Amino acid sequence: MIWKAFLLALSLVALGTGAEAQDVSLRVRTPIRLPDLPGYMTLKCDFHIHTVFSDGLVWPTVRVEEAWREGLDAIAITDHIEYQRFRADVSTNHNRSYEIAREAGADLNVLVIHGAEITRQMPPGHLNALFLSDANALAVPDWFDALQAARKQGAYIMWNHPGWEAQLIDRRVQWFPEHTRLLEADLMHGIEIVNGSDYYPEPHEWAVAKNLAVLGNTDIHQPINLEYKIQGGGQRPLTLVFARERTVEAIKEALFNRRTAALAAGKIFGDASFLRPLFDGSVKVLNAAPRREKTLLQIHNDSSVDFLLERAAKPGDVSIPEKITLWAGKTGLIEVRGLGKLPAAISRLDLSWRVTNLLTAPNTPLTVKLEVPVADPAPGKNR
Amino acid sequence: MIWKAFLLALSLVALGTGAEAQDVSLRVRTPIRLPDLPGYMTLKCDFHIHTVFSDGLVWPTVRVEEAWREGLDAIAITDHIEYQRFRADVSTNHNRSYEIAREAGADLNVLVIHGAEITRQMPPGHLNALFLSDANALAVPDWFDALQAARKQGAYIMWNHPGWEAQLIDRRVQWFPEHTRLLEADLMHGIEIVNGSDYYPEPHEWAVAKNLAVLGNTDIHQPINLEYKIQGGGQRPLTLVFARERTVEAIKEALFNRRTAALAAGKIFGDASFLRPLFDGSVKVLNAAPRREKTLLQIHNDSSVDFLLERAAKPGDVSIPEKITLWAGKTGLIEVRGLGKLPAAISRLDLSWRVTNLLTAPNTPLTVKLEVPVADPAPGKNR
Amino acid sequence: MIWKAFLLALSLVALGTGAEAQDVSLRVRTPIRLPDLPGYMTLKCDFHIHTVFSDGLVWPTVRVEEAWREGLDAIAITDHIEYQRFRADVSTNHNRSYEIAREAGADLNVLVIHGAEITRQMPPGHLNALFLSDANALAVPDWFDALQAARKQGAYIMWNHPGWEAQLIDRRVQWFPEHTRLLEADLMHGIEIVNGSDYYPEPHEWAVAKNLAVLGNTDIHQPINLEYKIQGGGQRPLTLVFARERTVEAIKEALFNRRTAALAAGKIFGDASFLRPLFDGSVKVLNAAPRREKTLLQIHNDSSVDFLLERAAKPGDVSIPEKITLWAGKTGLIEVRGLGKLPAAISRLDLSWRVTNLLTAPNTPLTVKLEVPVADPAPGKNR
Amino acid sequence: MIWKAFLLALSLVALGTGAEAQDVSLRVRTPIRLPDLPGYMTLKCDFHIHTVFSDGLVWPTVRVEEAWREGLDAIAITDHIEYQRFRADVSTNHNRSYEIAREAGADLNVLVIHGAEITRQMPPGHLNALFLSDANALAVPDWFDALQAARKQGAYIMWNHPGWEAQLIDRRVQWFPEHTRLLEADLMHGIEIVNGSDYYPEPHEWAVAKNLAVLGNTDIHQPINLEYKIQGGGQRPLTLVFARERTVEAIKEALFNRRTAALAAGKIFGDASFLRPLFDGSVKVLNAAPRREKTLLQIHNDSSVDFLLERAAKPGDVSIPEKITLWAGKTGLIEVRGLGKLPAAISRLDLSWRVTNLLTAPNTPLTVKLEVPVADPAPGKNR
Repeated sequence: MIWKAFLLALSLVALGTGAEAQDVSLRVRTPIRLPDLPGYMTLKCDFHIHTVFSDGLVWPTVRVEEAWREGLDAIAITDHIEYQRFRADVSTNHNRSYEIAREAGADLNVLVIHGAEITRQMPPGHLNALFLSDANALAVPDWFDALQAARKQGAYIMWNHPGWEAQLIDRRVQWFPEHTRLLEADLMHGIEIVNGSDYYPEPHEWAVAKNLAVLGNTDIHQPINLEYKIQGGGQRPLTLVFARERTVEAIKEALFNRRTAALAAGKIFGDASFLRPLFDGSVKVLNAAPRREKTLLQIHNDSSVDFLLERAAKPGDVSIPEKITLWAGKTGLIEVRGLGKLPAAISRLDLSWRVTNLLTAPNTPLTVKLEVPVADPAPGKNR
Repeated sequence: MIWKAFLLALSLVALGTGAEAQDVSLRVRTPIRLPDLPGYMTLKCDFHIHTVFSDGLVWPTVRVEEAWREGLDAIAITDHIEYQRFRADVSTNHNRSYEIAREAGADLNVLVIHGAEITRQMPPGHLNALFLSDANALAVPDWFDALQAARKQGAYIMWNHPGWEAQLIDRRVQWFPEHTRLLEADLMHGIEIVNGSDYYPEPHEWAVAKNLAVLGNTDIHQPINLEYKIQGGGQRPLTLVFARERTVEAIKEALFNRRTAALAAGKIFGDASFLRPLFDGSVKVLNAAPRREKTLLQIHNDSSVDFLLERAAKPGDVSIPEKITLWAGKTGLIEVRGLGKLPAAISRLDLSWRVTNLLTAPNTPLTVKLEVPVADPAPGKNR
Repeated sequence: MIWKAFLLALSLVALGTGAEAQDVSLRVRTPIRLPDLPGYMTLKCDFHIHTVFSDGLVWPTVRVEEAWREGLDAIAITDHIEYQRFRADVSTNHNRSYEIAREAGADLNVLVIHGAEITRQMPPGHLNALFLSDANALAVPDWFDALQAARKQGAYIMWNHPGWEAQLIDRRVQWFPEHTRLLEADLMHGIEIVNGSDYYPEPHEWAVAKNLAVLGNTDIHQPINLEYKIQGGGQRPLTLVFARERTVEAIKEALFNRRTAALAAGKIFGDASFLRPLFDGSVKVLNAAPRREKTLLQIHNDSSVDFLLERAAKPGDVSIPEKITLWAGKTGLIEVRGLGKLPAAISRLDLSWRVTNLLTAPNTPLTVKLEVPVADPAPGKNR
Repeated sequence: MIWKAFLLALSLVALGTGAEAQDVSLRVRTPIRLPDLPGYMTLKCDFHIHTVFSDGLVWPTVRVEEAWREGLDAIAITDHIEYQRFRADVSTNHNRSYEIAREAGADLNVLVIHGAEITRQMPPGHLNALFLSDANALAVPDWFDALQAARKQGAYIMWNHPGWEAQLIDRRVQWFPEHTRLLEADLMHGIEIVNGSDYYPEPHEWAVAKNLAVLGNTDIHQPINLEYKIQGGGQRPLTLVFARERTVEAIKEALFNRRTAALAAGKIFGDASFLRPLFDGSVKVLNAAPRREKTLLQIHNDSSVDFLLERAAKPGDVSIPEKITLWAGKTGLIEVRGLGKLPAAISRLDLSWRVTNLLTAPNTPLTVKLEVPVADPAPGKNR
C-alpha cells in the first residue's frame, strides 16, 4: 500500500528477531462474535464514514483496512455533498472516495456501499443516501430535490444524528413537518439513534413508533484508533444487519425491511425479535442445578458482548443474585440457594432476568429466561 | 468461601456503583479454545500441584478455584510425601489436601485427582503417583517400595522434572539404570518434558523413543497469579489429555494409553497424530485465491494458541511470505503473488508450512498443509 | 520460597528463549505514584488481612509478597482470635501468622504490623487491634476485656466493616451505645469506611463527626489476584498514612493522630487537608493560555490515580468543558474558548473544579483550583 | 477538527453515562519517560513522515495529533518530491503538507520541521532534507542539484533506509562513491540505522566510523496505530535528540553536532556517551546489601524502556543471577548470595552488567555498573 511495497517488502534485519526474515503478521482481523439469526446472517456494518474527500482525515482505503481489522462486513462511504473542507487541495468528485474504497474492499472482502451525506440545516438536517450510482447528481440547491435525485437511483435514505446539539432548535430534539413530508414521500427509511458516542432516546422512540430502521454509526472523521479502543473510548458503534446473505444487495433488502439493531458502547438497541435470539444464541447454561442447599450454575457467553443481568423475578424460595454480568467469551457463576427444599416434582428452574444493556426502547430492557434443569443430587462419588 | 460469606453476601454500597446492589461477577472462567479430536475430547489438565500440606503456599481449595478460572478440566493434588515444610503448623495426613480440594472440585465441576509426589534424590528423583486411594501408604523408607505401594492402588506413575538442575549429577540430564528398572517393573508411565518454565529436550527424546506419555505441568507452589500471566510470565503449562469423556476414569485410561501432549509457553509438544488434528481443527482458509497477480488469503485461527508458520516449500512460481503468525482467535492475511500465471488446469494451491511452535520431537516442527482453492477472477462487479 | 529453590534455581532450557539461561525477572513491584505531603511521607497500607491461621486461604508469607508487588509499604496481619476455620489442620497460636510474615517482610522491606481481629457479634462487631506484642492475650471471653488487654499492649483499635450487612440489626447501619463506651474508654481510634468492595457512607460521617481516623482495607481472604485487578475487579483498597518516616512506629503515631485517607475503587476519602495537597502535588498545568479564540491547555497528572473533574464555576465569558478526566500518568487537554475577549489586564485564569473522586465526606467532592497564566499570543512564528 | 465541532461539541446523552454531559477526555498524551542528560534535554523526534501529499494515507494534521499523543516533541513532514501517488486528486505543492501540519503543531505544542524526501534510485537512494524554507526548489532533475538546493537553504541532509531491500544492488547493503561525494560536499549529515521495523547493522557501523548522526524514524505512511502498538507491533521508532532547549533551532544544532540516538523495538542505538547517562539516570539501587547469606536488592527503573541485563563479571564469591530484566516503571529484585563471607573491609559491591538492548555499535552492548553499598546486618528488630 505504501510506495516501498511496490518493489519488495523484505527487510534485511527485522528488529528484535536477529538476522531472520521478518514476520509480517501485523494485519489482523478481530471477529465480532454474535450469533446468526434463524434465516439471517448477522452482518456488522457502519453506514456513516468520511474521508479527505469531504472533512475526514484519511484516504478512503484506510476506511476499508480499519473495517476489515475490526471485524466489519460492510461500510458505506458517505462524504458530504455540500461541504468539502479541503477543497483547495483535494479534487471535487463525489464518487471518487467510493471508487477508491471499493477497490480496497475487493481485496479484503469488505463490502463497500456507495453513499453520500446530504448536508443541510435543520430541518431536515443531514441525511445519508446509500446504494447510489452517481453521487454527483445529488449536488443540487434544494434539499428535497437532492433526496429525490438519490431516491431515483434507488437509494436508501436515513436521517443522521437527529439529536445533534449543534443543530438543535430551542435546545430540543424535534421531529419537524419536513420529516413527515420525507416519510410520506418515501424519502426516509432509517434513523440514527446512535452517532459516535451519542445516543438519542427520542429518535429511538420515533423509530419504534414510525417503524423506521434503527441505525448506529460512527460518523468517523479521524483515523478510527484515535477515537475508539483507547483511554476512555470503547468499541466503535455498529449497525447490525440481519441479511439473507453477505452481499450489498442483501444488506439493501434488509435495511428496507428494517432488520437492524444498533450496537454501541456495550449496548444493543433494537426490536425484541432480534435481541432475543442474539441473547439466546450467545448464552448457554452448562450444568444442571442439583437439589442442594447451594449450587453454582455455570453460564457461558460465547459472544463478544458482555450481558448485564438484573433479576426480574424471585423464583419462589430459591435465592439467586440480584445482578450478574455475563462477560464476553467467558463462563460465569450464578449461586443458587435453597434448591434443597424444592418439591420433588420440580424438574426445571426458570430464571427470569432483565438484560440492562439490551434495549428494545429507551429504558426498556429485554427480559430473558434461563432454563435450568433441576437434578437430583449426584450419588456422591467423584465425577 | 470466606467467613463473611457464611452469612450474607450483599453490601450496602458497592464502590463505584452508587447505591445499587453489588454486582458479584468476579469469578470468571476463561475457556482455553482447542478443538476436540476425532473420538476424543481435548481436556486441559495439570498433574503436579502443591498446597500448604507440603511446601505450597495456598489452601487446597485455591487450586480448584485457579484451575476453574483458567479453563482447566482436571488437576492432581500432589503434595510431597517426604517433605512437609510447615510441619510445625500444619497437620500430617497425606490424603488431606486431596480431600479438601475434591469437595471444592465438586462445586465447580473441576475433576480432582488423588496424587502424591514421592520425593527422593536422583536417581530416581521425584515421581508423582496419580489416582491413589490412600497416599499415606506411600510413606515408606525405600523408594521402590513406595512406588510399588502406589502401583498396588492402580496408580499411574510419572517421572517429574527429569532435567531439574538441582538434581543433576555431573551437570548432565541422565537416564539411570534405576529408570530402566522402573520402566520394566511397570512403575513409570509418563515423563514431564515441561515443568513450570523449563523444557527438557533429552527427556522429550526419551519419551518418543521409549513410548512414555509426554506431560507438562506447573509444579506450582505459589498462588498461580504470582507466576503466570504477569510481567514476563505467560500462560501456565498444561497437559492436554485426549480422553473419551470428561471423567477421572477416562483421563486415567488416556494417560495409560499415552494420548497426551504438553502445552507450554505457546508451544505444544506431542505426537503428530495429536498435533495435526489440533492444527487442522483450529485453522481455516476463508476464501479462494483468484487467478490474479496479487491476492490476499484470509486465514482464521479459532484456537487460543498462536501458530507460527514458516514456509516449507515454494509453490512453483507463486510467491508467499516466508513467515506468518496466525494469532489466536484472529483472522490473518497471506499475500500470494503470481497466481495470474498459473495454468488454467490448476484448481488448488497446496501451501506447505512448518509450524515452529508445534513440536513432535526436540527441534522438529510439525509440517502442515493449507489447501486453497484457486478460482477464476470474479467478473468484476462489487460483491 | 519453594523447595526446589533451596538448591539451585537455574533450568537447563528456559521455554521460549532457546538454550539460554533463564531470565528470572518475574518478581516485580509496581509503585503507586502519589506525592508526599509537606512534612509527611504518603505510605500505602492495608491493616486488615487474613491467612490460613484464621480463615484466609494463603500462607502468611504470600501476604508480604503480594503487598511488595503492589507497591505497599506496610500491612497488618489480623487473623481472627475467635474463629479458626482450619483448626483441624492448622495449629492455634495467634502470634504465628505475624511471626512468619514478619520474616518475609524483612527480606522485601515491607513493614509488617502485629495485629489481630477481635471477632464478636454486633454490637460491638469486629475490631482490629494493631501493634500488639502478644495476640494470645486477647483470647478471653468478654469482648471488653479483650480490647482492654490489647490496649494494655499499646494497641491501636479500629472498628471493622461497621456497615457489613451480615451483622446489621434491623437492616440499618447503627452506632450502638457500646461504641460510645469504647470511644470513651480510649478503645476505638479508627473506623473502616471501606472494606473490600464496600463503602459505608454513615460510618464516613461518624468518622468526620467523632474525629476517628478513616481507614480502607481489603479484609482479604483469598489470594489477592483472585479478587482484584481482574475482570470487573479494580485495584485493592488501601489506607494512605501520612507518616514522618517509613517505620512501624511512625505509622502508629500517624494513625493515633488521624493522618489517614482511604483509597478505593479509584476514589480517595479523607480530610481536605490531605486530599488537596495530594491533588496539587499530582497535577500540573504545562502551558500558558494565549489570548486567542481557542486554546488547548495541557494538564499533566503524575499520580497513579485518575482525577474526575466537573466544572465548579464558569469563568466569565470564557468557556471550558463541563467535565474532564485527568488520566493517571498522562497529559490531557482542556479546550478553553473566548480568551480573545479577555481584558488586557487579566494575567491569570483560575479554573475551579469539583474532583468527584476525592471525597471529604459522603457526596462531598473536594473543590480545587487550576491556575493558568494568560499569555499574549505568540508573535506567530514556529516555536 | 471535524465539521460537527465547528458548531458545538456537546451531545444530549452520552452513551454509558446516563443523562450526564459527556466526558470528552479522549485526547491523551502518554509521556515517554527518559532522563535528560547533563546540559541537554532528551527530545523524542521522528524525522521521516508521509501524508496524502505524497504517498501517505492521512491528512497532515493527523501526524501532529499522533505525535502529541505518543509523547513526541518534534516531527518532520517529509513527503516525496518526485513521487505523488494521489496526484490525480491531491494538489501538487511540496510545502503544503508542512504548512498544514505546522498550524496543528502550534495548537498542541509539537514542533513541526519543514522537510522533504528526495527520492532517487540507488545510488544515492532516498535522502531527507530538513529545516527547509521552500521544498519546491528541490524539484529539479539532477539529484545532486536537488541536494545542493536544499543545502543552500541551510538544510540538514540524511540518508534514508540505506539497507532497504528494494534498492539493494547485488543484494548487498553498499556505500557507493556517490555517498562519499555527498559526505565530502557537506551534503550528508546523518543516516537512518532504523527505518520502521528494520535495523541496518552495516550503516550503523558506517555511522560510527564516519561520524554521522544515527537516526531512527518511522517512515510512516498509514495511520500510525495500524502499524504500531498492535498485535505483534511495538512502539514506534524514534530519534532521541539531546538538545539545549525544546525548539526547532536547538534540534537543528543538536543534529549537526550528532547528539542523537535511535530508539526502536525496545533497543537504543547510540554512542556510549549518551546511552550511559540514559541508563544511569533511569536506574536506581534502592537498598543496601546486608552482609547476609542471601539478600534481595531492589532496583528501580524509572524510564519507559525495559533494560535487559546480562552479568558481565562474577563479583568474587558472591553469586548474582546471569540475567535480569529491569522493567519500565517497575522495581525488580536481584538476589545476591554469599555476602556473609565478605571481608569486613568491603563496603561496596560493584555489579557489572551488559545491557543487551543498549547498543553502541552492532552487537556491542553497553557495559554498566550498579554500585551497591554493603551494610552490616540490621540488629534484628522489625523496622
